[in-house]
Amino acid sequence: MNKPKYHIFVCTSSRINGQQKGFCHSKNSVGLVESFMEEVQDKGLGGEVFITNTGCFGICEKGPIVVVYPDNVWYGSVSEDDIEEIMEQHIEGGKVVERLLI
Amino acid sequence: MNKPKYHIFVCTSSRINGQQKGFCHSKNSVGLVESFMEEVQDKGLGGEVFITNTGCFGICEKGPIVVVYPDNVWYGSVSEDDIEEIMEQHIEGGKVVERLLI
Repeated sequence: MNKPKYHIFVCTSSRINGQQKGFCHSKNSVGLVESFMEEVQDKGLGGEVFITNTGCFGICEKGPIVVVYPDNVWYGSVSEDDIEEIMEQHIEGGKVVERLLI
Repeated sequence: MNKPKYHIFVCTSSRINGQQKGFCHSKNSVGLVESFMEEVQDKGLGGEVFITNTGCFGICEKGPIVVVYPDNVWYGSVSEDDIEEIMEQHIEGGKVVERLLI
């Protein structure tokens, strides 16, 4: 299969009991997923950058949480305003966005 | 923060609209999440191995899907019977379970 160069995971507070409820979800994390997907499409990166929503990472107080693999880079308190910077500086430029690290 | 040495993502077909519906979910992927969590606890690996449920990876026909980062290793058609092998051979032993690769 075609593996991603970068895989961005966004907590949407999706519980395994089927509920979607939690801090990240209450802070627009579904909007973050959609915006990341739009950015990936706009930049033509669909084949190499995957976006996936997740359940809780257990550090809710630092949410919304975004994790970038294979880098194992963890971002916190991510908002829509941060997405372009993450995409351009980290995903396209290879340089971690230090100010968002947790 | 304490970052994982291994992060295991299991598709539970958790959609961003709050629904939990799809191939992986229909094939006991919630049970897989729970079993991985139990294995991690039993082996005392809670601090270094994280388990997270996710939304769809878009390769449903190969599900249930399990992805191991930072290795970027993708397993398909995973069942409860495979969990001990993944945990012992890959996570503890560092050797990919070839027969489950997709």
